[in-house]
Amino acid sequence: MSGSVGIVKTEQVIFDTELRLESGRVLGPIALAYETYGRLNAERSNAIMVCHAWTGNAHAAGRHSADERKPGWWDDMIGPGKVLDTDRFFVLCSNVIGSCCGSTGPASLNPRTGKPYNLAFPVLMVRDMVRAQKLLLDHLAIPSLLSVIGGSMGAMQALEWGIHYPQLVRSIIPIAGTGRTSPMSIALNAVARQAIFNDPMWKKGNYRAEHPPADGLALARAIGHISFLSDASMQLKFGRRFSMRDGLFDFFGQFEIERYLGYNGASFVERFDTNSFLYLAKALDLYDVAWNFEGLEDALAQLACPSLWFAFTSDWLYPPYQTEETVNALTQLGKQVEYHLIDSDYGHDSFLVEPEKFTPFVVEFLDRVAAGS
Amino acid sequence: MSGSVGIVKTEQVIFDTELRLESGRVLGPIALAYETYGRLNAERSNAIMVCHAWTGNAHAAGRHSADERKPGWWDDMIGPGKVLDTDRFFVLCSNVIGSCCGSTGPASLNPRTGKPYNLAFPVLMVRDMVRAQKLLLDHLAIPSLLSVIGGSMGAMQALEWGIHYPQLVRSIIPIAGTGRTSPMSIALNAVARQAIFNDPMWKKGNYRAEHPPADGLALARAIGHISFLSDASMQLKFGRRFSMRDGLFDFFGQFEIERYLGYNGASFVERFDTNSFLYLAKALDLYDVAWNFEGLEDALAQLACPSLWFAFTSDWLYPPYQTEETVNALTQLGKQVEYHLIDSDYGHDSFLVEPEKFTPFVVEFLDRVAAGS
Repeated sequence: MSGSVGIVKTEQVIFDTELRLESGRVLGPIALAYETYGRLNAERSNAIMVCHAWTGNAHAAGRHSADERKPGWWDDMIGPGKVLDTDRFFVLCSNVIGSCCGSTGPASLNPRTGKPYNLAFPVLMVRDMVRAQKLLLDHLAIPSLLSVIGGSMGAMQALEWGIHYPQLVRSIIPIAGTGRTSPMSIALNAVARQAIFNDPMWKKGNYRAEHPPADGLALARAIGHISFLSDASMQLKFGRRFSMRDGLFDFFGQFEIERYLGYNGASFVERFDTNSFLYLAKALDLYDVAWNFEGLEDALAQLACPSLWFAFTSDWLYPPYQTEETVNALTQLGKQVEYHLIDSDYGHDSFLVEPEKFTPFVVEFLDRVAAGS
Repeated sequence: MSGSVGIVKTEQVIFDTELRLESGRVLGPIALAYETYGRLNAERSNAIMVCHAWTGNAHAAGRHSADERKPGWWDDMIGPGKVLDTDRFFVLCSNVIGSCCGSTGPASLNPRTGKPYNLAFPVLMVRDMVRAQKLLLDHLAIPSLLSVIGGSMGAMQALEWGIHYPQLVRSIIPIAGTGRTSPMSIALNAVARQAIFNDPMWKKGNYRAEHPPADGLALARAIGHISFLSDASMQLKFGRRFSMRDGLFDFFGQFEIERYLGYNGASFVERFDTNSFLYLAKALDLYDVAWNFEGLEDALAQLACPSLWFAFTSDWLYPPYQTEETVNALTQLGKQVEYHLIDSDYGHDSFLVEPEKFTPFVVEFLDRVAAGS
């Protein structure tokens, strides 16, 4: 039987330190929002770090109140008796820096000016996000991680954890990720970005929180949303159905897929900061595991733990061949690697929509890692 | 040896008639811009209709003047000794209605008001474009077409010609087309459309020609452009190269792919009308060969001539399976069908970039059709 972690609370910790970023700039003080589920065991050896995707947050499981409409974003995965079993594991999820859900990002106050950073915020890399998470680990006095798991941008963080903290990390599980983003995914982010830049309300990032560039951000989100779906999932969900409310020959008449993208974009504006969206998009574009190494092999050679990888057949944002490039390089380096190509129609979002297709492998893998400790 | 058709001129003819459209509305008078290459033979039996894609025009081959920078858009294909051999064939290409390159479209004067139609222009279907082309055929006293050939939206027109004028058309060659557009391609058009709607310069279509919604149209074009390319072609052409002029950690720093999309979008604004872009996008979204028939079989049963089809492996806008659906249905109906899946990395644009991969089949096919006459 599997259940819910129940009512949870997002905690926040502020580190009065300056973090040196990949860009050479420094960022500080640093606030991090996080949630934890389950209990740290006496040996402090059962912690699992869950890393969220682009527009995710620290609220991965449970509910903030009894009447919260939806549970955390990976509630399917986290709880007593679930894949990340909170009866056995201490599960931890923190909001990445650059985001807007409790951790320091462009909407935070710049200590030098007392005003929001906006575009004075430094450009971040995924590696910087992981470095900030390490502060949290030290704060909680967690000496090692049984595993680091995440999908999409979360997969990138898992890989960075394994490569930059090999002495701390006992396994990683990157799902629907890539070793470096492709020009196709950069191109999609470029047009999403431009949609925001074109919005006069954006004001070069100096909009007021209560007057965000709503049209631009909604459109940017709709563009991103297309890349998370697939031809097959759209055929299944929408087909060529035309909105019942519109005439087929109305200039502004919409197909159901259009109406859905519009609705989804508009509701996103209510929950996400535009500049955060842009900074995180930039971090995705810049992502290359080989950055500051001699090359891919040199980077991957740092990994000291077993890794479990998943890619999805219909994912065209980070297509399977990209995960396979990394997996093949690891295999050639003699690393302990397990890879599964999962047949799914749900595109990049498959890791959220059909977890049951890959979770049996995760359970087995975690059992082995835990037994090996 | 193959050569150029030389200096050519776009002709324009105005039909003082009212065309009844699929929507039930009427459009007229109707101007059509067209070019012809080669000579009609004594039997008037050697005419080939070339149909252009979304943002194409009647200028398919040759040059308008000796110093025109680029020849017509399919100059690789059309000329003495070329695939569409103007020593043998009379080749004809006309700008579709709804466009802005000499044929009646939303920027044309509405005879009822004396002002541009703008959004008072009726929503069109591809079928309406073909119906207008038929006026041109009658005007030129061409009793039959040896073939109708085109890529993308041109493929849709070729299929419509075959189905709605079976007594006139002796063969069709649809390239990189689809029997009906998918929700994925509608979604891409939806965000392109929204990019224009978001531009305050658009003014619900009532912009002045000299002040178009340039930012919105450039972005819309960039979105479309992504869908014409492929992951592989972007890897080949751009990879992850960062603009030499920008710093990697500049907020506005660009990858080469971004710069290219921006440049391409901006130059598009100089040559295309925004409302035309929107009306033609709408026609693409509405495209379904089965429209107003009992179903796909009923529609395809009308086809009386041999057809030659091409799809491209890396085309994700109109993926091969979509052409194959139509081809399989035709085969089941016992029609004379020939289909080739062409291996190419250039995505939807393959039909423009690598014609040499499919043209040998076209030459052979046209020889057979011509011999059968």
